[in-house]
Amino acid sequence: MGKTALIVIDMINTYDHADAELLLPSAAEVVPTVAALMKRARGSGAPVVYVNDNFGEWRSHHGELLDKALAGPHASLVAPLKPDDKSLFVLKARHSIFFETPLQYLLSQQGIDRLVLCGQVVEQCILYSALDAHIRHLEVTVPRDAVAHIHADLADAALRMMERNMGAHVCASDDLWT
Amino acid sequence: MGKTALIVIDMINTYDHADAELLLPSAAEVVPTVAALMKRARGSGAPVVYVNDNFGEWRSHHGELLDKALAGPHASLVAPLKPDDKSLFVLKARHSIFFETPLQYLLSQQGIDRLVLCGQVVEQCILYSALDAHIRHLEVTVPRDAVAHIHADLADAALRMMERNMGAHVCASDDLWT
Amino acid sequence: MGKTALIVIDMINTYDHADAELLLPSAAEVVPTVAALMKRARGSGAPVVYVNDNFGEWRSHHGELLDKALAGPHASLVAPLKPDDKSLFVLKARHSIFFETPLQYLLSQQGIDRLVLCGQVVEQCILYSALDAHIRHLEVTVPRDAVAHIHADLADAALRMMERNMGAHVCASDDLWT
Amino acid sequence: MGKTALIVIDMINTYDHADAELLLPSAAEVVPTVAALMKRARGSGAPVVYVNDNFGEWRSHHGELLDKALAGPHASLVAPLKPDDKSLFVLKARHSIFFETPLQYLLSQQGIDRLVLCGQVVEQCILYSALDAHIRHLEVTVPRDAVAHIHADLADAALRMMERNMGAHVCASDDLWT
Repeated sequence: MGKTALIVIDMINTYDHADAELLLPSAAEVVPTVAALMKRARGSGAPVVYVNDNFGEWRSHHGELLDKALAGPHASLVAPLKPDDKSLFVLKARHSIFFETPLQYLLSQQGIDRLVLCGQVVEQCILYSALDAHIRHLEVTVPRDAVAHIHADLADAALRMMERNMGAHVCASDDLWT
Repeated sequence: MGKTALIVIDMINTYDHADAELLLPSAAEVVPTVAALMKRARGSGAPVVYVNDNFGEWRSHHGELLDKALAGPHASLVAPLKPDDKSLFVLKARHSIFFETPLQYLLSQQGIDRLVLCGQVVEQCILYSALDAHIRHLEVTVPRDAVAHIHADLADAALRMMERNMGAHVCASDDLWT
Repeated sequence: MGKTALIVIDMINTYDHADAELLLPSAAEVVPTVAALMKRARGSGAPVVYVNDNFGEWRSHHGELLDKALAGPHASLVAPLKPDDKSLFVLKARHSIFFETPLQYLLSQQGIDRLVLCGQVVEQCILYSALDAHIRHLEVTVPRDAVAHIHADLADAALRMMERNMGAHVCASDDLWT
Repeated sequence: MGKTALIVIDMINTYDHADAELLLPSAAEVVPTVAALMKRARGSGAPVVYVNDNFGEWRSHHGELLDKALAGPHASLVAPLKPDDKSLFVLKARHSIFFETPLQYLLSQQGIDRLVLCGQVVEQCILYSALDAHIRHLEVTVPRDAVAHIHADLADAALRMMERNMGAHVCASDDLWT
């Protein structure tokens, strides 16, 4: 039995993309929950891995993405989620945390075989990442109050798909690292 | 602009897996539609690619899978969909048509960049395959009457996800190759 | 610690490809060694996995490839290496046994983490496959008398590269399963 | 026909790894050649992509790798090769520039289908990357005076393998972008 990591998806964000207006209220709601989850994971010694879209088009690095997000109009959604010295980083091309990224290699090198997925958005990147984790025989947990959505009905369907068809454990974030 | 292929997913099937009872009525409904679609695709010279789970555990080949399905109690769901001499075959490990398969290579070698996905089941393998096609910048069409489901509500959500979030064109099979 | 498998590369062959004339003498020399190795592996209960180029262009299956090779002018190089009922099969696109194939999935499902690579040709497919196994942290053994070559000098360099840079164990086939 | 990119492999380096002593003289020899090549590529508007081992263990980013290398005892081998504002970056896990990296995605998004590989070391990462490029049907050029080696004899064999078996064009760096 391996280790469990907290995977924080697409939360280093300037929120200037399509559908951002629809996402913002939900993001604002989950940020404190994600921050608390992160704190408890760190307290338990669980690795925290930030996986983020590469907004910088292969020129920027995660430090620059963070600086840009913290300088933008939605800094208050990013500041509570700042990485610490032990945080790990993976830049993704698009959608899934596994597509054309070194994440699978990083996980296997660190002996991690269980993932807690949080961040945004549940009916897209979280759903796709849960599938790609399941297909690789990794165990997936999704705390339903720590994932933001754009469309509530699709988010609900996504959670049921993950639970029923991808073997994911859907729970409350309070159940984790407490 | 490349070619369009018809991708027939998991229809060479003995229907003895979990949830088969729930799937059978929907499968029975789509088989004639898939058969007609296949006939029109072949008539237009479009490549037909069968992508199927490897029930044989890496010992069998697609000829044996077909023989076994045709000898089983649900042969009537398989016989109308038999491959012809020009059919192409890919065995998949699980779920997505792209996961650990040569499909991406086959498509690029044949100059195919548009996929029509039919078969089963829409809220699982079809959804996962549509995502993996979209992430690879392939164009996806899903004829809604040529895909079978296990759970109608998740199937409906899956079709909306494909249309809204994966750029898929959801249509009636009568719109294709006519 | 997992299991060891014997991987037989590109030996189901009609030998009508480029460079076949240069390959044939070396192939003829290794066939009896590969056959003996296969027999000992089977006797020890080790899985034997045939990985072969897909000469059939995604229309044929491994049974047809075998029939064609056995009906050709070089049947005597194929007959001693026929699969048995327990043999496993993977068709590859080109070069490496891992490129766009389900091999990594098959190995992990069967708990195999050590590979003995035999077949042809050592300075191409065997070298590339040893690299792709090493990069995936699989342990590799190459019996130098059970791998055929086209160019002797490149074959020698390939064996040194595998030993020095890819952590492979290069040995005599008599050291294995005896 | 797509664009050509210059790929600079593992040159942002602290040279404190195994075999570094053997590598240093060859690296010192190629640095001015790589720097000149880079200058001509930039002058022609060709994209320059740095692909580098992730020495930072998924905590650091390319800016930190560069700072560390420039602060070390071998800064003189790194300073002439500094990225400019248009440089692109990919961190790799190990060995090949394609293994678990977004490089293939980056290349296809930018319309690049021809690679000039330079850097180190020719009988390892350059060889593996040339293979992985060839297997993906990308065109490869290797300027022999812009690649460093650890073992001269294996480097020579690697260049012959790339030329003969991987369809690579091996040339002098003066032949490129002049």
